[in-house]
Amino acid sequence: MTIWLNGRLIQAAEARIDPADRGFTLGDGLFETIRIKDGLPRHLPRHLDRLTAGVELLRLPLPYSAEELTGAMAALIGAAGVADGVLRLTLSRGTGARGVLPPADARPTLLMTVAPAAHMTAPGAAIVARSTRRNEHSPLSRLKSLNYLDSILARQEAAERGADEALLLNAAGRLAESSVANVFLSVGGRLLTPPLTDGALPGIRRALILERHGAEEAPLTPEDLARADEAILTNSLGLRPLVAVDGHPVGSGAAGPVLARLLADPDL
Amino acid sequence: MTIWLNGRLIQAAEARIDPADRGFTLGDGLFETIRIKDGLPRHLPRHLDRLTAGVELLRLPLPYSAEELTGAMAALIGAAGVADGVLRLTLSRGTGARGVLPPADARPTLLMTVAPAAHMTAPGAAIVARSTRRNEHSPLSRLKSLNYLDSILARQEAAERGADEALLLNAAGRLAESSVANVFLSVGGRLLTPPLTDGALPGIRRALILERHGAEEAPLTPEDLARADEAILTNSLGLRPLVAVDGHPVGSGAAGPVLARLLADPDL
Repeated sequence: MTIWLNGRLIQAAEARIDPADRGFTLGDGLFETIRIKDGLPRHLPRHLDRLTAGVELLRLPLPYSAEELTGAMAALIGAAGVADGVLRLTLSRGTGARGVLPPADARPTLLMTVAPAAHMTAPGAAIVARSTRRNEHSPLSRLKSLNYLDSILARQEAAERGADEALLLNAAGRLAESSVANVFLSVGGRLLTPPLTDGALPGIRRALILERHGAEEAPLTPEDLARADEAILTNSLGLRPLVAVDGHPVGSGAAGPVLARLLADPDL
Repeated sequence: MTIWLNGRLIQAAEARIDPADRGFTLGDGLFETIRIKDGLPRHLPRHLDRLTAGVELLRLPLPYSAEELTGAMAALIGAAGVADGVLRLTLSRGTGARGVLPPADARPTLLMTVAPAAHMTAPGAAIVARSTRRNEHSPLSRLKSLNYLDSILARQEAAERGADEALLLNAAGRLAESSVANVFLSVGGRLLTPPLTDGALPGIRRALILERHGAEEAPLTPEDLARADEAILTNSLGLRPLVAVDGHPVGSGAAGPVLARLLADPDL
């Protein structure tokens, strides 16, 4: 498989990350997961805006313009021959000597890979994770950083408890998101999703649903799951009904009309 | 410089981490930082016990026995010729396809590097970080995981505010630790350090001070800094006085007798 690494298209087997790369040693970096449809990255300006916000917050170097990144993605998608799939962009701070403080002259590592992937719409069953919680007091909760171990822990717990997804609570005990997706609940005719201040990642599809489908941000608790008519998980690669949580059906226990309305929006 | 990677001593310039390594893409792994003194790793059984606890919690594969790891470290220290310094062991889950859930057949990446480093005893000035907080609700707070971005953020803030270390509060607003060290306060004749349940890493030196020097775990707040006679930062590589926080001196603003007592313990 062809990948793009620091300005070059190369075969993955020939690509090398330095063992001193801070992405590997400290998780010092960011990523974006972008859906490819008809050979084009979807909602790219929004993904690049989020990447830029993360770059500024972490003071990461990013020596490529939006135009250069867009061109590199097109070249990679063409070389890999993936028309329907996913592009992952990973930006790390690059190599550094020992220590937490980043080097002043960091030269970042920028990696892009593509893979075939279908748009995920299959119903899911989740647990509410007991193993860990999301940290709404850290700005990392609002970035797609390379620090994904809390999600990994929650997802391992889900697998062990026979579910395919995990919902994470924040420190205050409110719903934040799932291990890889934002959560929407349809409650009493309103479509609600946790606010960013509760630890929700600012998902691209989340923003589109808020802007275009009358959804609202609202603090949500596990009890709200019990009174929801529908629960929906959204990320750039999927829009799927969450039909059960902790073994209890959500609403009718099947996909509902709100999801159908979202799936009917071709721009989502 | 010679490093040890997956069973082989090789030159760092020839070592390759796969771009699909989950350590790089998701921070899916652990590390240990071990002081080398007189050519030997200090308190190695305790470091290996902590590594094992992390391996079990994250369900990481670790296909090396304690004896094999000990032998590998001796070979690396000898080859690198470092008598006084630091050994870092990094264990990641190895490569994986896209997705958060670890592959069932993960083959881990184990990297060991050494570097010269002096034992750090210089006085430090800290800030209380405003940029982020430590998540005492996650078991990751009790592991040396590869998810170090909160510490990086706090340390960048310290540098920007003219300090050389940052203290992190937890979600509840209590002291957890510094960006790279445990914190002890001498208050009214007692030596106190935050409990693990407040988000403190179970540091090796922290444990030794609790066991051998009559220190006690106690919840601590920023206000306790104002009434402390001494503040001390401890990790495997240093035992240093924290002489100022947010521009205010701690106690007399200089190293004190409690630190002198700890520094006089040759087994610490």
